[in-house]
Amino acid sequence: MKIVMDGFGGDNSPTEVVKASVMAVNEIKDLNIIITGKQAEIAKLLKEYDYNGNKIEIVNAETVISCEDENPAMQIKRKPDSSLVVAFDVLKQNEDVVALISAGSTGAVLTGGFLKIGRLKGISRPALAPTLPTKFDNKGVLLLDCGANADCKPINLVHFAIMGSIYYSTVYGVEKPKVALLNVGVEDAKGKELTKEAFAMLKNAPINFVGNMEAREILSGDYDVIVADGFSGNIALKTVEGTALFVLNGLKTAIKSSFWAKFGAMFMLKSFKKLKNKLDYKQYGGSLFLGCKKNIFKAHGDSKAESFMSVIRQAVNISKNNINGKIEEVLQTLEIEEN
Amino acid sequence: MKIVMDGFGGDNSPTEVVKASVMAVNEIKDLNIIITGKQAEIAKLLKEYDYNGNKIEIVNAETVISCEDENPAMQIKRKPDSSLVVAFDVLKQNEDVVALISAGSTGAVLTGGFLKIGRLKGISRPALAPTLPTKFDNKGVLLLDCGANADCKPINLVHFAIMGSIYYSTVYGVEKPKVALLNVGVEDAKGKELTKEAFAMLKNAPINFVGNMEAREILSGDYDVIVADGFSGNIALKTVEGTALFVLNGLKTAIKSSFWAKFGAMFMLKSFKKLKNKLDYKQYGGSLFLGCKKNIFKAHGDSKAESFMSVIRQAVNISKNNINGKIEEVLQTLEIEEN
Repeated sequence: MKIVMDGFGGDNSPTEVVKASVMAVNEIKDLNIIITGKQAEIAKLLKEYDYNGNKIEIVNAETVISCEDENPAMQIKRKPDSSLVVAFDVLKQNEDVVALISAGSTGAVLTGGFLKIGRLKGISRPALAPTLPTKFDNKGVLLLDCGANADCKPINLVHFAIMGSIYYSTVYGVEKPKVALLNVGVEDAKGKELTKEAFAMLKNAPINFVGNMEAREILSGDYDVIVADGFSGNIALKTVEGTALFVLNGLKTAIKSSFWAKFGAMFMLKSFKKLKNKLDYKQYGGSLFLGCKKNIFKAHGDSKAESFMSVIRQAVNISKNNINGKIEEVLQTLEIEEN
Repeated sequence: MKIVMDGFGGDNSPTEVVKASVMAVNEIKDLNIIITGKQAEIAKLLKEYDYNGNKIEIVNAETVISCEDENPAMQIKRKPDSSLVVAFDVLKQNEDVVALISAGSTGAVLTGGFLKIGRLKGISRPALAPTLPTKFDNKGVLLLDCGANADCKPINLVHFAIMGSIYYSTVYGVEKPKVALLNVGVEDAKGKELTKEAFAMLKNAPINFVGNMEAREILSGDYDVIVADGFSGNIALKTVEGTALFVLNGLKTAIKSSFWAKFGAMFMLKSFKKLKNKLDYKQYGGSLFLGCKKNIFKAHGDSKAESFMSVIRQAVNISKNNINGKIEEVLQTLEIEEN
């Protein structure tokens, strides 16, 4: 199994990408990794990490698409020699390369997925699908779409639901994942035109649809898959991030403002760390761009080697379990039923 | 100045409503309060709180609209003898009653506002506008609409922006409040059709429009007024609530799981309380239903007397400063300019 890593995406590239790649090929047998980016720099790092094997290959790419670039999404067309575009080319041109991982600009990764790889047969729109932490267990909740499609039609949400359900049941072994629709209230008739129409269609989709849910319950653990249009999903995702940071920073400030609090905090370092780990959704891997012909992962921009490793494990897992094949199978049945 | 309080809305009614009313008329001279609900019960509580003055009046209402009622919004039509509907009648029929406060069902309060009171002249849609805490100061950020209008047109967002800006500058004495559009990215061309069209119009509106902003920054303190369609605003608001609770509960669990952490926490009680107060947006008052002919406030469902007091102070402040008059004035200028 081969995957390709964008060697120069994210805040800690290329160092942490190369480090993770070495860790990964050592941990997972049958895994080969292609790293794209400046050949000499990557080769030097491989040497630093004492890697002499033949399971990591470098494909040279001279430039980088940066989040600071004006309109990073457009750079996909403008920078054919960038580490990300070269990675997409590697993914597209090699049948044995099954997944791409990049910690670069989300917009650029999504645009690359749309333009270079394309949709799965039968899927109206692919969706960006991160997993968020929840209260009760270590499975978390899959929230999609988180921003690939700002404007959605009801059928898009149905496809998100089917894809999310198959993903969740395959990855976590949950037989009938609870799929809910993100809405402004729990009653059936709630919401905007889009959610009202989607609700009716979701009731008849081949999923365990449990109805509407409110944003207050996203992290409650009561749901396995939450479906939203890309605009609303993005708002929810980023509000979770911003609020968690706000509360943790507030806690820090409150502690720092008092001698006794600082004293007490010394006894709580382990507990604070536990909490921080709980909130760190990088442990759940990256955001999968679900519904593309091949598996594309957006890793968090500030990923370190351990986080990249989570994404690599996730990529291997999904590819081995052939989730895309399962999705196409279900959609084919639907088409037959519709005729 | 007279305001009317729904005596039987919220989890802690009528006790805390009556308690707050007594506190309010004692604190604010020239304030009179009308409480709606079961006459005997309210009179008994007034006696308990030793109130013998003539600044509190009771208007009898036999029933209650409960959040457990099926479709509380529809109950506005079905329960004309409920404490909330009677409060709306008092507000509508008495020129000297300037505001209504209820901790009852949000849907019912909004429906009552729409049906019984109606829109300000020139306002296409009123908006639910709560104030959320921010990092740097005690002013907080006004987020609107948070759920009165699930589907919005660009002009609605422009009206939200103008109303929010006037509200914020009047209440907090900020000359040119920074107004931003909630979006999936900061670039001008970002977002869905609605936000793209609204963006162009907001640039020409009589406000200090600072552009698009991402949900991650809602609590950052970088913005004074954030404008959104009611669906997205509701998602953002409830995600803030859910995430804050999630983190605080996570902290509690982490502390409880260790002896030393529990020991350390004893020294941090004050700091924890400070943090909790910081996060408690009931201190900012209620959610104003901005753009109705009279001032309507939704207090938090679990409000106690102190929280009701914040809302009463807010209501008095807004009414004294004639925010509705200012809004109508600005909208009139706009119409003239358009001709």
